[in-house]
Amino acid sequence: MTTITVPASQGRAVRVAKGQKLRITTPKGAQAADFFAFNAENVGEWLSCPHTWVTSFCIKPREGDVFLSRFRRPMLRFVKDGANGVHDMMIAACDQFRYEFFGHHHPHASCSDNLQSAMRREGYEVSVIPQPVNFFTNTQIDAQSRLVSPPNPVAPGAFVEMEALMDVICVISSCPFDLPVEGWPINSAQGVTELLLDVQ
Amino acid sequence: MTTITVPASQGRAVRVAKGQKLRITTPKGAQAADFFAFNAENVGEWLSCPHTWVTSFCIKPREGDVFLSRFRRPMLRFVKDGANGVHDMMIAACDQFRYEFFGHHHPHASCSDNLQSAMRREGYEVSVIPQPVNFFTNTQIDAQSRLVSPPNPVAPGAFVEMEALMDVICVISSCPFDLPVEGWPINSAQGVTELLLDVQ
Repeated sequence: MTTITVPASQGRAVRVAKGQKLRITTPKGAQAADFFAFNAENVGEWLSCPHTWVTSFCIKPREGDVFLSRFRRPMLRFVKDGANGVHDMMIAACDQFRYEFFGHHHPHASCSDNLQSAMRREGYEVSVIPQPVNFFTNTQIDAQSRLVSPPNPVAPGAFVEMEALMDVICVISSCPFDLPVEGWPINSAQGVTELLLDVQ
Repeated sequence: MTTITVPASQGRAVRVAKGQKLRITTPKGAQAADFFAFNAENVGEWLSCPHTWVTSFCIKPREGDVFLSRFRRPMLRFVKDGANGVHDMMIAACDQFRYEFFGHHHPHASCSDNLQSAMRREGYEVSVIPQPVNFFTNTQIDAQSRLVSPPNPVAPGAFVEMEALMDVICVISSCPFDLPVEGWPINSAQGVTELLLDVQ
């Protein structure tokens, strides 16, 4: 088994061979994990949330669901949900402009930058930021179709486990969102924390 | 004023200069209009639904909302909704694989192909199919986060109107979906019909 720590506000790429399992854990709880996956043989094929939910007919990932690529091919199966379904597939990966939108006008770490850096370490330039699966992220769509984000209830040690259905390069970002935005507390009020990755 | 007919199951590109308005009408009603937009100076910048809804905090486009690009820049304002809010931003553009998923294993016209053909006529190869805004498309997210598509109630003559906030190339596809899938009646039961585009 390979274990990798994703430091708070950083990202890491990890290769997961077909049949292997990837577990992502939030040791301290309530830490959003932005998750991206690419076909290891062709990084032009990536996990697509819209293609996934229009096939699962559910905007939340559930145990047993299969994450599809933008070509609608099976990439990973969500085999175990140790976080009670508190996940999101709607929030675009944060980037510098997102922080500026919330009034932060200095450079800020972001999931988009983390993705691009992690993939460069693997030898690839990613020029399109896919819609991530945001594990351990508490969003809901209310009756007026509004996107709301109540406080994050994910417990320390919560995890998700996926099985690769093709050889994939996965990127996991510890979402650096730390602005005190009323009604939009993505992570714990105690700050951004690390994630753990286990591949076996 | 320029008026263009988008024949049933086909797509058309139309250039809309900053300050001009584009109206899309479903003359017979209940015809899904897949809508894509690209920065006319750089087609690498396109309208992004996830970046739009995470800023409007609503997964439905509403009068006054601004459609943002994947770089979070304003592209178009939704100035008039003549279809009572019956629109979708969740359903990935149909493609050959979508029809195969529903059991149709022969070639089938699709919004993805329509987009690519329309953009080739403008001189561009589109290699990433963006998540479209699907006007006149009736989807809802139920209390279990499931994506459902009740029968399409959009009246004949319903329309939407947008104002361009930058020079854009817009592509509108008359969604060719015509499979009799129980619980997933995207268009009218009477079949796929044309759309009208007015630019002024």
